[in-house]
Amino acid sequence: MKGNKRIEAARGLEFPWPPRIDLGEMSFQFHLMKTEKETGARLGKIVTAHGEFETPTFIPVGSQATIKSMTSDDLIEIGVEIISNNSYHLYLRPGHRIIEQLGGLHRFMNWNRPILTDSGGYQLFSLGQLREISKDGVTFQSHIDGSRHFINPEMAIEIQQSLGADIIMSLDECIPYPASYEYTLRSTSLTTEWARQCKEAFRGNGQALFGIVQGGMFEDLREKSARELREIGFDGYAIGGLSVGESPDIMYSMVSYTAPLLPRDNPRYLMGVGKPEDLIDAVKEGIDLFDCVIPTRNARNGMLFTSFGKLVIKNARHSTDERPIEEGCGCYTCRHYSRAYLRHLYTAREILAMRLNTIHNLYYYVQLIKGLREAIRRDNLLHFCKQWNEKREGKDDL
Amino acid sequence: MKGNKRIEAARGLEFPWPPRIDLGEMSFQFHLMKTEKETGARLGKIVTAHGEFETPTFIPVGSQATIKSMTSDDLIEIGVEIISNNSYHLYLRPGHRIIEQLGGLHRFMNWNRPILTDSGGYQLFSLGQLREISKDGVTFQSHIDGSRHFINPEMAIEIQQSLGADIIMSLDECIPYPASYEYTLRSTSLTTEWARQCKEAFRGNGQALFGIVQGGMFEDLREKSARELREIGFDGYAIGGLSVGESPDIMYSMVSYTAPLLPRDNPRYLMGVGKPEDLIDAVKEGIDLFDCVIPTRNARNGMLFTSFGKLVIKNARHSTDERPIEEGCGCYTCRHYSRAYLRHLYTAREILAMRLNTIHNLYYYVQLIKGLREAIRRDNLLHFCKQWNEKREGKDDL
Repeated sequence: MKGNKRIEAARGLEFPWPPRIDLGEMSFQFHLMKTEKETGARLGKIVTAHGEFETPTFIPVGSQATIKSMTSDDLIEIGVEIISNNSYHLYLRPGHRIIEQLGGLHRFMNWNRPILTDSGGYQLFSLGQLREISKDGVTFQSHIDGSRHFINPEMAIEIQQSLGADIIMSLDECIPYPASYEYTLRSTSLTTEWARQCKEAFRGNGQALFGIVQGGMFEDLREKSARELREIGFDGYAIGGLSVGESPDIMYSMVSYTAPLLPRDNPRYLMGVGKPEDLIDAVKEGIDLFDCVIPTRNARNGMLFTSFGKLVIKNARHSTDERPIEEGCGCYTCRHYSRAYLRHLYTAREILAMRLNTIHNLYYYVQLIKGLREAIRRDNLLHFCKQWNEKREGKDDL
Repeated sequence: MKGNKRIEAARGLEFPWPPRIDLGEMSFQFHLMKTEKETGARLGKIVTAHGEFETPTFIPVGSQATIKSMTSDDLIEIGVEIISNNSYHLYLRPGHRIIEQLGGLHRFMNWNRPILTDSGGYQLFSLGQLREISKDGVTFQSHIDGSRHFINPEMAIEIQQSLGADIIMSLDECIPYPASYEYTLRSTSLTTEWARQCKEAFRGNGQALFGIVQGGMFEDLREKSARELREIGFDGYAIGGLSVGESPDIMYSMVSYTAPLLPRDNPRYLMGVGKPEDLIDAVKEGIDLFDCVIPTRNARNGMLFTSFGKLVIKNARHSTDERPIEEGCGCYTCRHYSRAYLRHLYTAREILAMRLNTIHNLYYYVQLIKGLREAIRRDNLLHFCKQWNEKREGKDDL
């Protein structure tokens, strides 16, 4: 029986679709398995109603109930363990009620592994037009049709409960960069207040609720935010409001300052980050989860990650190169297609270019994560990072 | 050994790619296996250096060395046996010499089954700008960068020999509709002259060369064209210049008139056709091969073929419909995704919509072809057609 369940979870559901899993029977768990000797890096395990996975892990971004160009089977073959989805997008289209009626997000998009949904906070502040923020919530215009909408913390939770992801996020204000101390203080207090309302509205029911630490680029406000969220109590803690335009140094120092303020026995999630080097740095600081559009968006723009640096597929030097993107890479793309062909597809603006490039970049991230986990397990993370840096030093094909 | 070859042909090549197959060792064959009792429908077999397939068959169009959004493995899973490629597109980008240097089209695009290339005639007349036609050939401007090019029959063959497809086409002028008798006569004579030059330039070398019958909508010119091409002698004969804007009745009468003028022991290829009903009608007249962008282009535009008629996925009625496009359909899309999800992907303009829709439509065409072959085998084609029509009568979801 357990064996059957495992097989089912390892591939896409087939018509007639099985009934929706009752999340209520399950409970979210995080097990901290070890902390690396020389760094703060952590090896953990997250258990959800839709299966378990090790941390650190990277969460590919599926904004509109799809990782662009990928089927579920593609993602499973690549080794993706959890994906994110975007409440803001799904609330507007097709509507969370429709997805609920269809048995939730997992059934809707035929993804039988864990899903995380964000609260929409980031999109409200980056995509929403004519945005008006008040103590009660956010009024905004849809980027699709200009229609007016209002979202408050209670609704952010209600939407995410309808969608039925395994991990859901409280509503926050993502502070733009740069921002004054006064603005950041006011906004961070609002995020705490909203987090409290989210927690009150949250019914549990097998889902996990994460709080989001804000505080801009001010250490004392990060501390205040982390403390207040800990007091409310969440299943996990995210660090938000980074990778919004600040320098890598500032981002790194904020992660490094904030991570130790978070409870040891809950997962720590660095939102919207990042490049491979950012992941490595943040893992060292004890971050467990990441999500970012970089591997997928860069793939669609023809920028490919390899162990020797970045490769820009449109460059003319690839036009007669029979090698795969990276020799020895086990991804579907590298096993079947040459750089010359990928360059042709990209310059001819063919859809297949986006798909094959996405497969490669996601596989690269999955392999990097596997390498990091293994290094933590063996207590040789610093050595791993040194080797990783040496291999790619100065060889970017930009 | 033969078993190994079969396995290799059944999936994409893996890096390091095996050497290019020497077409020169093989020879193209067509075996007419039977003619159906009540109609002129034929069951045949084509043997090429890259494997064999039964006829009638449908050839999906891969303009730029890719069936848009499909990997080779997708096509193999769907049951596609042969694809076409476009000389005009590949001559301009990436260039036939580059593809030759990379070991030919099969290796370049990692498609190990038969390929047909057209001569570029159709594209020269539909895409080329500032086109000037003379007895010697065609001068045109690239639709990509406006650069000036000249192609004559000898070069059309040279390009296709570089690409290395299993079946190549002679250069023709695709006559626009409507056209006067005088224009059509002059143009058809030119196509014959070009066909003669193509035959002279053709080195064989394991490839098959097909001639293209023109003659516009005039029976006597179709007869003249067919007779002249037969005199030159080709491995197969195409009917060109149809599906260019004429009514279905005129097209049908031209196919019906022209097909019997072609040699019994060579394959007959109706170019650029068509809708499922066109295929059925033309099979009855003894046509063996078809190619058309309809299944793939319509898929990208959200128009899906089913046994009960066409389904327009963007229609609101599908927004909460949990059923697959067609219950009982064995395609990957129908086995894994609901109409509701496909509608969402389409309205959200997601890349995955194009891919999942393309899988379904190509699978539909493959199944239709299988049904036609089986009906010919059993001598009950008219019964098959009657049932096929009854099932879809008046139920289009347009």
